[in-house]
Amino acid sequence: MIDQSVADVMTESVQTVTAETTASDVARLFADHDIGSAVVVDTESGELVGIVTESDIMHQVAIDADVATISVGSFMSEHVVTIDSAESIHEAATLMKDHSIRRLPVVDDGALVGILTTTNLTHYLPRLRNSILRTRGELVGQ
Amino acid sequence: MIDQSVADVMTESVQTVTAETTASDVARLFADHDIGSAVVVDTESGELVGIVTESDIMHQVAIDADVATISVGSFMSEHVVTIDSAESIHEAATLMKDHSIRRLPVVDDGALVGILTTTNLTHYLPRLRNSILRTRGELVGQ
Repeated sequence: MIDQSVADVMTESVQTVTAETTASDVARLFADHDIGSAVVVDTESGELVGIVTESDIMHQVAIDADVATISVGSFMSEHVVTIDSAESIHEAATLMKDHSIRRLPVVDDGALVGILTTTNLTHYLPRLRNSILRTRGELVGQ
Repeated sequence: MIDQSVADVMTESVQTVTAETTASDVARLFADHDIGSAVVVDTESGELVGIVTESDIMHQVAIDADVATISVGSFMSEHVVTIDSAESIHEAATLMKDHSIRRLPVVDDGALVGILTTTNLTHYLPRLRNSILRTRGELVGQ
């Protein structure tokens, strides 16, 4: 249970956009789906080319960019830290901490299969605690 | 360690704004401090009157609001779920899950003393795991 896999906790449906999507369209996507990031994929190959987050849009608003025309490609993060779905959530949390990020696209053999966020990990905490208390009970009872 | 307190994990410095602050000023505050929320306080009494998050700003961008003039008071969340710093992080995680929120202002005796986010809880996960493994080792060794 402590080393539960990313696959068990991640969100399987991932919203994708292309580098040509405008900042305001991304903001609408985020608002409509109550999400904070989208994976940027190549229009033709479908390959992951970046990630765009609420903070990126926030930065565009902060510098008075014209959000209706500026496209994701000009401000997305191109260096995307990803994780395999078989990895442990402990590894995922460590990666997030080390890279100061809050979302990890989950990629298996080159294919995007989900996204793991700090919210997913937080929702998992109470389950983790209950499991630990049960385990302790068992150990004490031996 | 499992029931570590909110005080041990929270961020102590909390950015505050007033209901008159504009959406674009909030976006700049978020971008400058790399944060995703601010607590809204009353200009005179300093009392907590709301919370504004990245998602709220995102929603304003999504509906094509004029972010340079619209003020926080018109779109902030007025019903703020808060937590006491002595509560357990387990309780905090459960509150976040139940209310579908990612930030909890930490309030002791009416005074704002910090903010707890899903990022704080995620950064705490690896420490929690190590502690559990140590505890198990001790129990097995008895």
